[in-house]
Amino acid sequence: MHDEGPTARQMRLGAFIHHVGHHVAAWRLPDVPAFGAMDLEHYASLTRKAEAAKFDMVFIGDSLATWESGPEADSRMAGHAFLEPATLVAALATHSTHIGLAATITATYNEPYNVARRLASLDHISGGRVAWNLVTSSNPAEGQNFNRDSHVPHDDRYARAQEFIDVVKRLWDSFDDDAFVLDKAGGRFFDPAKWRATHHKGPHFQVRGPLTVARPVQGHPVIAQAGQSGPGMALASRVGEAIFTLQQTKESARKFRDEIRAMAVGHGRDADDILVMPGIVPVTGRTEAEARETFDRLQALVLPEVGLALLAQMLGADLSGYDLDGPVPDDLPPNEGFKSRRAALLEQSRRDNLTLRQLYEANAPARGHRVIVGSGAQIADMMQDWFENGAADGFMLLPTHLPGGLDDFIARVLPELRQRGLFRNEYEGRTLRENLGLKRPG
Amino acid sequence: MHDEGPTARQMRLGAFIHHVGHHVAAWRLPDVPAFGAMDLEHYASLTRKAEAAKFDMVFIGDSLATWESGPEADSRMAGHAFLEPATLVAALATHSTHIGLAATITATYNEPYNVARRLASLDHISGGRVAWNLVTSSNPAEGQNFNRDSHVPHDDRYARAQEFIDVVKRLWDSFDDDAFVLDKAGGRFFDPAKWRATHHKGPHFQVRGPLTVARPVQGHPVIAQAGQSGPGMALASRVGEAIFTLQQTKESARKFRDEIRAMAVGHGRDADDILVMPGIVPVTGRTEAEARETFDRLQALVLPEVGLALLAQMLGADLSGYDLDGPVPDDLPPNEGFKSRRAALLEQSRRDNLTLRQLYEANAPARGHRVIVGSGAQIADMMQDWFENGAADGFMLLPTHLPGGLDDFIARVLPELRQRGLFRNEYEGRTLRENLGLKRPG
Repeated sequence: MHDEGPTARQMRLGAFIHHVGHHVAAWRLPDVPAFGAMDLEHYASLTRKAEAAKFDMVFIGDSLATWESGPEADSRMAGHAFLEPATLVAALATHSTHIGLAATITATYNEPYNVARRLASLDHISGGRVAWNLVTSSNPAEGQNFNRDSHVPHDDRYARAQEFIDVVKRLWDSFDDDAFVLDKAGGRFFDPAKWRATHHKGPHFQVRGPLTVARPVQGHPVIAQAGQSGPGMALASRVGEAIFTLQQTKESARKFRDEIRAMAVGHGRDADDILVMPGIVPVTGRTEAEARETFDRLQALVLPEVGLALLAQMLGADLSGYDLDGPVPDDLPPNEGFKSRRAALLEQSRRDNLTLRQLYEANAPARGHRVIVGSGAQIADMMQDWFENGAADGFMLLPTHLPGGLDDFIARVLPELRQRGLFRNEYEGRTLRENLGLKRPG
Repeated sequence: MHDEGPTARQMRLGAFIHHVGHHVAAWRLPDVPAFGAMDLEHYASLTRKAEAAKFDMVFIGDSLATWESGPEADSRMAGHAFLEPATLVAALATHSTHIGLAATITATYNEPYNVARRLASLDHISGGRVAWNLVTSSNPAEGQNFNRDSHVPHDDRYARAQEFIDVVKRLWDSFDDDAFVLDKAGGRFFDPAKWRATHHKGPHFQVRGPLTVARPVQGHPVIAQAGQSGPGMALASRVGEAIFTLQQTKESARKFRDEIRAMAVGHGRDADDILVMPGIVPVTGRTEAEARETFDRLQALVLPEVGLALLAQMLGADLSGYDLDGPVPDDLPPNEGFKSRRAALLEQSRRDNLTLRQLYEANAPARGHRVIVGSGAQIADMMQDWFENGAADGFMLLPTHLPGGLDDFIARVLPELRQRGLFRNEYEGRTLRENLGLKRPG
């Protein structure tokens, strides 16, 4: 396969840089900079590494509130203090030249005019390398920071998000690409025929426009989306372009990819306008044994109160009072939070007959995402299998710890993928949209 | 005065980088990069120059809507497309090491949790060099981008801003400075006794907290403020630290400074906790004649429809149908917008008996701010006079055109000020607060 031409389908790779790693105990490892989530240089150095390795993008998550589990467990976790994504991504843009930069911004507790402006500005600052990870806010604590007693119900948040993205896109089109004539002698800055107000009036928003920013370099920043519930998939299939998804098995990933591609076609899009990127948590080393050792070292650092608190957050349920070595309770009250994540965890516990302790251990590396521990070749095998069998267009990597987890993937797995012709040696273009092979909006 | 010790009082200088210059026709000059307002490198290069010259800060304004005057006038102005301040300032932070960075963010169409987070993040990204220019939104068009039919009335905006800043400050104090113990062996990330929720419930906001960001490097970013109306001064005197103010004469500036210092003392503050920085628009050259030539060249580029449109915006009134060479109408309807700016312009027109054309010409260089055209020594004389006679603690410079207007000030005026011992040769500290000589909040 090495001599396939440049048109051979290759996989897309994103590096989800979550603080100092996705594993809840990552900060306790000796080589991890514990306070990295507050340190620009930590993120900048990882971005430069990912760019040197030709990743499509780095991906920055977000939360508009601390996830609280009581001071004892909270104070043993690293995730309560971190840089804000839009300001972080602006700074990272100046530390890189080709890699895409995905910023998470919620549609639940922001206004579309502000978000459209910030993303358009980021797209210009980065020279066309920005993606917007459009999320809705599932954490009840977020509502309490925004004048509410609780959070916005699941369906309402998605209805708001659907209208939100439409307003944002229309605001991005306020100026045509070629509106700015800059005629100094004639005193004409732009062609008024290539400029328009938005005049949106809908159930959630009333926005006149136009936007105060030139059209983004990419036309529109790439839209990343991660919803997997019914309303989440409805949104993703209509507007999403890079779909980050939690999938434990190749079968479920293939089913999800088939469904969302069909739904996209139902919206009048090409199936290939939507890239499905399951999350994977690769733990690797020179050998499978070395990989296993790294993984065991991390797992041994999980304190029970921390592991249980993190699981309770993901399930949206109080788990105190249950026996850690007994079964996972099957009568948890319903919850409006991470619907699909909760379902995946509960399915995993039933499938593998896990105790509560085993489930929190399974949840500790990356909150339910698929973990794969092995040599570079073993991980590349799994990725190739999913990629070539309709389960993935690429992957979002969730390194357990940083920088080690990313370094190991680049050193062990990427050479395998390249040898098989599955991943690029050079960037194809300068914008994220070009590198992902996505169309530029007209 | 040259041999005064380091404790001699020196003036503070900010460079207000407004697109490609404050003058409405700046973009038409040959040496001005017309589309600079959308170009990070334009701002970055100016920031590096201002830092090399030891300015206290660069200052970035904002508007959440285009100021519209009809497509014909609008399309002849440069101000309809520009980068968003918070993302711009994040990028500028990586291009500089010592200079302060002031970002304008309105309290009218944002939520305090988002603003607190963004500014705290910027303060960490910049190593403690951020100021927040806290404004309220006076442009009626802004309301129409945020679900309203009109804008928020003047007094309501200030009541909201007063509560807003209190919530933001309390959010910044969510963690103590020394909360993060980072004890890897013991598994303790922070001391829970040094962490607190906000639990704010007020007429405008309900915010639980805590903030998801460590305490800002400066404790709190420096608060810049520019309100001059009654409610504006009430806010500035209570929380403002660097006060940007429109003052046409030394007498009015001294009166303003005396008043606001007395009001600050009334709030239990030291008078020196508040720095009054009138705006000035310096136009200079090797000689007074050369300065005059530069100024005349700019004024000659003002198209009547553009000059009139800009004046109409500042007065918040429709000026069509009036004779350009007749008197300024004295029966303009009341307006909720730029109250103090409008009053200053109308006062100027009465004082100097200006026609409508003369008033729009006076308004074109920097929308009502004090213009001074002269040699470096002449401009330094004026600044020294105000500084030594109780009218100013420093100045906010509003260059007419960029980069030339800033280059000329640095080349002609700064050496004069330095020779007189009125401006620093080196930064005193690393944070903006240290360089401004402002106390760090406990």
